[in-house]
Amino acid sequence: NSTKHSLFTVEERVEMLEEVCADLANVGVGSFEGLLVEYARQCGATVIVRGLRAVSDFEYELQMALMNRRLCAEVETAFMMTGAEYSYLSSSIVKEIARLGGSVEGLVPNSVRRRLREKLGF
Amino acid sequence: NSTKHSLFTVEERVEMLEEVCADLANVGVGSFEGLLVEYARQCGATVIVRGLRAVSDFEYELQMALMNRRLCAEVETAFMMTGAEYSYLSSSIVKEIARLGGSVEGLVPNSVRRRLREKLGF
Amino acid sequence: NSTKHSLFTVEERVEMLEEVCADLANVGVGSFEGLLVEYARQCGATVIVRGLRAVSDFEYELQMALMNRRLCAEVETAFMMTGAEYSYLSSSIVKEIARLGGSVEGLVPNSVRRRLREKLGF
Amino acid sequence: NSTKHSLFTVEERVEMLEEVCADLANVGVGSFEGLLVEYARQCGATVIVRGLRAVSDFEYELQMALMNRRLCAEVETAFMMTGAEYSYLSSSIVKEIARLGGSVEGLVPNSVRRRLREKLGF
Amino acid sequence: NSTKHSLFTVEERVEMLEEVCADLANVGVGSFEGLLVEYARQCGATVIVRGLRAVSDFEYELQMALMNRRLCAEVETAFMMTGAEYSYLSSSIVKEIARLGGSVEGLVPNSVRRRLREKLGF
Amino acid sequence: NSTKHSLFTVEERVEMLEEVCADLANVGVGSFEGLLVEYARQCGATVIVRGLRAVSDFEYELQMALMNRRLCAEVETAFMMTGAEYSYLSSSIVKEIARLGGSVEGLVPNSVRRRLREKLGF
Repeated sequence: NSTKHSLFTVEERVEMLEEVCADLANVGVGSFEGLLVEYARQCGATVIVRGLRAVSDFEYELQMALMNRRLCAEVETAFMMTGAEYSYLSSSIVKEIARLGGSVEGLVPNSVRRRLREKLGF
Repeated sequence: NSTKHSLFTVEERVEMLEEVCADLANVGVGSFEGLLVEYARQCGATVIVRGLRAVSDFEYELQMALMNRRLCAEVETAFMMTGAEYSYLSSSIVKEIARLGGSVEGLVPNSVRRRLREKLGF
Repeated sequence: NSTKHSLFTVEERVEMLEEVCADLANVGVGSFEGLLVEYARQCGATVIVRGLRAVSDFEYELQMALMNRRLCAEVETAFMMTGAEYSYLSSSIVKEIARLGGSVEGLVPNSVRRRLREKLGF
Repeated sequence: NSTKHSLFTVEERVEMLEEVCADLANVGVGSFEGLLVEYARQCGATVIVRGLRAVSDFEYELQMALMNRRLCAEVETAFMMTGAEYSYLSSSIVKEIARLGGSVEGLVPNSVRRRLREKLGF
Repeated sequence: NSTKHSLFTVEERVEMLEEVCADLANVGVGSFEGLLVEYARQCGATVIVRGLRAVSDFEYELQMALMNRRLCAEVETAFMMTGAEYSYLSSSIVKEIARLGGSVEGLVPNSVRRRLREKLGF
Repeated sequence: NSTKHSLFTVEERVEMLEEVCADLANVGVGSFEGLLVEYARQCGATVIVRGLRAVSDFEYELQMALMNRRLCAEVETAFMMTGAEYSYLSSSIVKEIARLGGSVEGLVPNSVRRRLREKLGF
């Protein structure tokens, strides 16, 4: 999604995901430029897994899934529902709270919290 | 879903699915009473796959997925998006059209169409 | 829509619409059995006009419009938005209020109000 | 809402609420026939408080709030959001689970659970 | 909400609200930096009142209410529904109309209209 | 809509529409500054036709239609539903795909595709 102004660079985001997933032996973290379905094809992936939180997520994700199916019929998109207790979490609201000096403890992993603190100087 | 008045009995519906899936070697058709997650557990299934068409589907499916996760944490629900060209199809609208004498050719498999015709006498 | 239990018969509903539209020279009232697109074809109508009030209307009307386009490509559906001041009006809520003894003055034409009173005995 | 077929009678529902609210000194439980705004007026209430869970709740509640404001301008409706961890709970899903033999422990107060068991014989 | 580019400064917005609320003895106007719940706490407020117009409002407001409840459990958010006749009003659409030379009479108080005219030079 | 950063200038967009509509004798292409209803009035148009794809379209279009009706009661807005097979198409997603090097063949007319290629250099 090229329209979001990112607080963290791609490299920083890869690092954060690697820290958080360090204990998960079967998880790899990667980054790419270009189309998601192209990246999936290069990785040999046949399923893209996405989370769904809210109705507004749903319409965007439906659009992307149908378009991706059209761009590459071999790659299917599967969705999982976010747990109810995290349904109100989004990266924007977490960054907003951090910027305004609120505590994000329990909203993000500790390693992400440390980086938010360095970045935003709180 | 116990509130829908079914046009076809459970046995008829199992038969229709078996006819339609006859060529798919890795698909089995079953029926159950009681909770879906209980049935999944008995089958040794760890994933329930559901289709999503519209926003109104989404809210109901979100509710069911969160409740099923609570009832049985080992069984996860995954969703796939209906193809755009079938987005307006539902069992109710097909039955309504058949009842009013419209053609459902291309909307349902031929074997289902034959059974609709016998049932509704059109 | 065959699933709604009607308070008024088809004949009564035709009469009410004729009373309300009596001053509109270019409006005719009719009734039909079967598919709406069949009726449109018989009347020589090429456009079906429907009102949209709310998001929940939208999904149902989208489904019907796409299905009707499939059943009969020559008949198109056009939608108009309900005025903001009537956005919360529906036939169900009006009947509910009348049943519970509330005043429906200003919510329906006077001739309809008289008939509601006769029917429900308030 | 006169269209729901109730599992419990009005008397049983009043009793359940009284049991659950027994420790809340400032809560009274009542029942009424007719319009909600009429009942509010008789009680001298000026605010109706309702919970909002999902988008589908929202449209119905918006309709009711606007209609109630029209029927009785002195009574205002205020809404509160259901806690995220209960967002997927509804009376229908709880009754469905109980009917199908699932455990509703933690989904409803214990006194309600006992009554569900007596009613449904599980 | 830090992402909106404001047409008016915070000071101007406070002045406009003070003009509009001048006759309301029990209304105070304030401004703050930081988290809304922190400001509520400082003011000794226990309830945040917000308006709801549309489904898209609802999802954002639900997210904010649940997050604010988590940040500060003593402050509750209550919602009221916008009157049907104002349901299509938003600050963006009013500014857009003013920018394009349309009349905003009746859409905003006269004092706000004067300021819009000065700001946009129409 | 003044907030979208356009890839193509107004002149280019008029040219593209003229190319695409060249065979349609009863279609004219125009451009305007200011309010849409003013432009409609100048053209002698009494109906604005808009397409509806998704729930998120609906809320924005409802707002615009109600506001336009208020600004100019003689101009009515009528809506038509996008064909199911195009429901996931939007100008943003097409531009995103083109930018990322994906094929937009079949998603836009060939003349538009040529211009996208020139503009984005793919």
